[in-house]
Amino acid sequence: MGMGHWVCAVGFTLLLCAGGASAQEQPRLNLMPMPGNVQVGSGILRVDSSFSVALTGHTEARLDRAVQRFLRQLSRQTALPLSPKASTKPTLKVHTDHPSKEVQELGEDESYSLSITPDDAKIDAPTPLGAMHGLQTFLQLVEVSPDGFAAPAVTIQDKPRFPWRGLMIDVARHFIPLDVLKRNLDGMEAVKMNVFHWHLSEDQGFRAESKKFPKLQTLGSDGLYYTQDEIRDLIAYARDRGIRVVPEFDMPGHSTSWFVGHPELASGPGPYQIERKWGIFDPAMDLTNEKTYKFLDELVAEMTKIFPDHYFHIGGDEVNGKQWDANPKIQDFKKSHKFATNEALQAYFSERVQKIVTKHGKAVVGWDEVFIPGVPKDIVIQSWRGSASLAQAAAQGYHGILSNGYYLDLGWPAARHYAVDPTSGQAANLTPEQQQLILGGESCMWSEYVNPENVDSRIWPRNAAIAERLWSPQNVTDVASMYARLHAVSAQLEWLGLTHRAYYPQMLRRIAGQSATPEQLTALRTLADVVEPTKEYTREATAPAEPTSATPLNRVVDAVPLESDAARRFGELVDKFVSSTCREADAAAQLRTQLSAWRDNDSRLQPLIQRSFLVKEVAATSQDLSALAAVGLAALDFANKGGAAPDDWKTQQLAVIEQVKKPKSQLLLMPASAIQKLVEAVAAGGNCAATR
Amino acid sequence: MGMGHWVCAVGFTLLLCAGGASAQEQPRLNLMPMPGNVQVGSGILRVDSSFSVALTGHTEARLDRAVQRFLRQLSRQTALPLSPKASTKPTLKVHTDHPSKEVQELGEDESYSLSITPDDAKIDAPTPLGAMHGLQTFLQLVEVSPDGFAAPAVTIQDKPRFPWRGLMIDVARHFIPLDVLKRNLDGMEAVKMNVFHWHLSEDQGFRAESKKFPKLQTLGSDGLYYTQDEIRDLIAYARDRGIRVVPEFDMPGHSTSWFVGHPELASGPGPYQIERKWGIFDPAMDLTNEKTYKFLDELVAEMTKIFPDHYFHIGGDEVNGKQWDANPKIQDFKKSHKFATNEALQAYFSERVQKIVTKHGKAVVGWDEVFIPGVPKDIVIQSWRGSASLAQAAAQGYHGILSNGYYLDLGWPAARHYAVDPTSGQAANLTPEQQQLILGGESCMWSEYVNPENVDSRIWPRNAAIAERLWSPQNVTDVASMYARLHAVSAQLEWLGLTHRAYYPQMLRRIAGQSATPEQLTALRTLADVVEPTKEYTREATAPAEPTSATPLNRVVDAVPLESDAARRFGELVDKFVSSTCREADAAAQLRTQLSAWRDNDSRLQPLIQRSFLVKEVAATSQDLSALAAVGLAALDFANKGGAAPDDWKTQQLAVIEQVKKPKSQLLLMPASAIQKLVEAVAAGGNCAATR
Repeated sequence: MGMGHWVCAVGFTLLLCAGGASAQEQPRLNLMPMPGNVQVGSGILRVDSSFSVALTGHTEARLDRAVQRFLRQLSRQTALPLSPKASTKPTLKVHTDHPSKEVQELGEDESYSLSITPDDAKIDAPTPLGAMHGLQTFLQLVEVSPDGFAAPAVTIQDKPRFPWRGLMIDVARHFIPLDVLKRNLDGMEAVKMNVFHWHLSEDQGFRAESKKFPKLQTLGSDGLYYTQDEIRDLIAYARDRGIRVVPEFDMPGHSTSWFVGHPELASGPGPYQIERKWGIFDPAMDLTNEKTYKFLDELVAEMTKIFPDHYFHIGGDEVNGKQWDANPKIQDFKKSHKFATNEALQAYFSERVQKIVTKHGKAVVGWDEVFIPGVPKDIVIQSWRGSASLAQAAAQGYHGILSNGYYLDLGWPAARHYAVDPTSGQAANLTPEQQQLILGGESCMWSEYVNPENVDSRIWPRNAAIAERLWSPQNVTDVASMYARLHAVSAQLEWLGLTHRAYYPQMLRRIAGQSATPEQLTALRTLADVVEPTKEYTREATAPAEPTSATPLNRVVDAVPLESDAARRFGELVDKFVSSTCREADAAAQLRTQLSAWRDNDSRLQPLIQRSFLVKEVAATSQDLSALAAVGLAALDFANKGGAAPDDWKTQQLAVIEQVKKPKSQLLLMPASAIQKLVEAVAAGGNCAATR
Repeated sequence: MGMGHWVCAVGFTLLLCAGGASAQEQPRLNLMPMPGNVQVGSGILRVDSSFSVALTGHTEARLDRAVQRFLRQLSRQTALPLSPKASTKPTLKVHTDHPSKEVQELGEDESYSLSITPDDAKIDAPTPLGAMHGLQTFLQLVEVSPDGFAAPAVTIQDKPRFPWRGLMIDVARHFIPLDVLKRNLDGMEAVKMNVFHWHLSEDQGFRAESKKFPKLQTLGSDGLYYTQDEIRDLIAYARDRGIRVVPEFDMPGHSTSWFVGHPELASGPGPYQIERKWGIFDPAMDLTNEKTYKFLDELVAEMTKIFPDHYFHIGGDEVNGKQWDANPKIQDFKKSHKFATNEALQAYFSERVQKIVTKHGKAVVGWDEVFIPGVPKDIVIQSWRGSASLAQAAAQGYHGILSNGYYLDLGWPAARHYAVDPTSGQAANLTPEQQQLILGGESCMWSEYVNPENVDSRIWPRNAAIAERLWSPQNVTDVASMYARLHAVSAQLEWLGLTHRAYYPQMLRRIAGQSATPEQLTALRTLADVVEPTKEYTREATAPAEPTSATPLNRVVDAVPLESDAARRFGELVDKFVSSTCREADAAAQLRTQLSAWRDNDSRLQPLIQRSFLVKEVAATSQDLSALAAVGLAALDFANKGGAAPDDWKTQQLAVIEQVKKPKSQLLLMPASAIQKLVEAVAAGGNCAATR
């Protein structure tokens, strides 16, 4: 097929471009990440119990497993009993040209094409990596239809924009068991991410078994670590899904847990305990001690044998230097080497560790801090500080990946992550050759406030928007389309066993208590649906008591999703109403229904407020929601009457809104801004759109 | 403590009897099954992160594991991080006198006492079985409170009414994987059931690995069977939870799957295929062939080595005799032995198999049909036909367990199962000694219409009501109390990993499609919440196509719970309104809100009806709900006006109700009866309570 047939500007609109039929008749394709090129055809391919898959060309056991996994997943999505056997007339043919590398490498060909007609479907890919991506695309296309399950006729040619599309999970601050990691790898496969960055050590825990230095995990993990067999198991699991595993052993800071068993590595006197609090701590490795490097050499030797990936992450972030400052021996060393700053000390350490890693045949990845001009060119800089450092590194010929802007723990809405592009900001000024040095990005799930129960919900579905940013063409930026597709892909991810939706009603039931009636639960859900945890790094400061790793994560702030769908939809409704010069009767009616429910919710929640300390904590927020809704209803009343509202009314309402915008019990009341917009529009008079 | 302190008539009321404070101040104890004796004390025991358990007296590894499991479960319920280590000042002391039997036996002591004070708690039990029950009782008592998680001060002395409290799961018609069985064993432990009856063979599958006769599973199971290692694993898992495992190999009928690999066992000519349909089929073992008994002898020898329980279930149900009638050799045998009926033939077979089982040191359990006067007295009759056969057996000195009335697949409400007592009906006329022969009962989950996705929801929570019937004193019969506690225990069971609630929104999302909006999903849920699958054995007859084991279970009828909570609560509200002589304004307002939502629901569901074949199927039911709700609203309007409604109005409304009561797409619209009651009350005039 000639490329001239690719007529779609993908991602510009929900309804993909015309392929003979009118836009209205086109199905919306719930694809995420959106493929590079999509052409919608005519008709549908029915998916029923006779569905089967056949592999041609290069085959290998991994592809067979991928097909079996595909069939199981298709069976879950549809509840169709599907035979694992290939048939003589397969519905879907998957042709693979040749094997991929024995150990998956950065930049391997991941492309594929997918063609679906009403008769059958075909995936063509140079390597198993592309074939597996094609299978995932097919899964996303299967939808319920008026005549059964079906995939729309479509032709897709697809390949990633960036070769490094990662998710980092911090398993140290809260331990995340292997099965939870596995289901998140399933999620990564579904959205075509290809690097799992395993943040294995921290002040709060050393989570990988070392046989050479067993005290690392026996004394540094409370028994919560992965055995070497488990690590190998996860690596194999990841490889089966086209995912590389990059381990991180964070040093020379963020390493208190190492020192519990090995105080001799530290720059300050021991003994050390596993750190239970959050923050940046003083302990750091003694960079002047040759024994430190000998230890690291042996540990890196052991770990690089277990982790096959070419890249090895040495951390390097957030050394506060206090132990170095306090250690006379290190101060002498600093003077004798003429190091002006602690950064220079760290540069020395980084260089030494890089040489060790290189000696064992690997290339280093490190956080911003490890970038020192002059280091070997095969290093990869992971930027947590911003695009400036990434651009700076690229300008000097260094590879980088972006994580600033992709921190899932900060509680940003998907749209905000989605707007972050690895080649924007200062990187936009780079030459095309320099931009090529930017390999992609990684979302980061730091785990101060997540545990196995809620971690899925802190990663998904928002991570899918980041996955799209890293895979799809740069011009795929339509936010409304992203949210519509995110909603669909989120539903689909559930069939993988991810609990990012199911955890929520269950946590709310714990908060409400087993005796709560359905009505009381609805009241709690109504409130919980419109709040979000406070953003960025505000939770430590506002916590009722200093949080530690032993603090139960059972509060409303731990239960609610980080992005309120209900508040976003309410905001869209307000926009629609206001932009209609406050005359859209349907929008007005919907707003009134919603606001009335919110206004009346506090009284419905009272029985639970009386009964549960976890609900009592949000009593003030519940009152705020009622007050806020009353403001919104008053605004609607004014809009109904027409004419401008009196100034003092507006002042009063804005004062109420100002009040409810203040975070309480670490929660933000999300509809506040939309109701403020409503008040301001109404106060401006009949043609309220003018105020927008 | 003297028994004179036990002042409570348990189960009589939600609020347990007075213990110093007034009834209003008493907590409701969400216990199920309700213990034999409960005395509520003053105050609460706080449950926080310092909670710990210590074992005293007899200890064994199983008790240690039970405590660890208890702590994990308590941690799930509360999200408190609990240390697995015992402390010097334990919150809960568990004292066990002596070990239980190496292989758990029928009738072992399962009693325990539990005492909770504001300072600490104590469980005392003669054996680990009682200690484990006590731990489960404690878990049910932990609730959220205004001041944190807590258990009320309480003193409990408890023991089971019946020694045989079982759940049977048919893993043959649909294969149920090991992990699904395990979570159901967890559920059984929570409600103190102690027998897992594993229905391992059927026409549709032979699910246990035989190394002696591997063709049984390789040709008779589509590869869906349990290996012997898996079986041993499950038995150990059950023993850890105080649960015996009774295997069933159903013969001489219900055995088509055996004949696929071993046609020589059958009474008719082969070859045989695994049966894919439901019902009673002709194939039956050749009872005249000595090779049959040799085969069974070797199989029983193999299986009794794997299954340690003293009881071995040989099935014996529903032999239609057609193959026997058609086989001249068997007819000759019948004549030569002077057997008048096929029942007599089966009696001969049963006796032979019983001798084999006895030879291998086990006692036989069989369905009603195996009861032939004169068989050895250690046989146990499992009654699926009714209490009459159970009473008949007991009258002749035979042991029995009741399953009639406990068939979970029939779709009965919990209250109906709850009303079935093993010693009621004809058994009530037995002497006390004869009644002692009734060992208890078993709920049965036949699996024509269940699979791993929805099976939990077909077992739970209703099975907990049966568990209570078999454990608690006979006078624990208050249905309102049962439902209130069932609601709480159902929430608690979720923390075990049972999916009896979580499956439901997920199945509805599949039915609706990934693109469904929240509003559309709510509309589907509103409809789904008030329908139930048609009852008893009606699904075959009314199915759109003959159902088989390959029929997808993805329809609304497969998704909705078997008992509609929403309809039950609506019925209670109608009762309240009608009994107030239709003057209860609050009830009227609630009824109006509910009915309005139902009336308007059909139009909200239309987009999904257009888009999904699975929703389209229930379009008529959706219209019925709207029509039914309109009738209810009209009745409220009349009640509001006062005076009797005209006769023709009543006739019209009842005609509508009659119409919507007809099952459509195998669904019943459950609020129909309550609305009929409302119409009849209103039609009778102002004092509408008179019609009740």
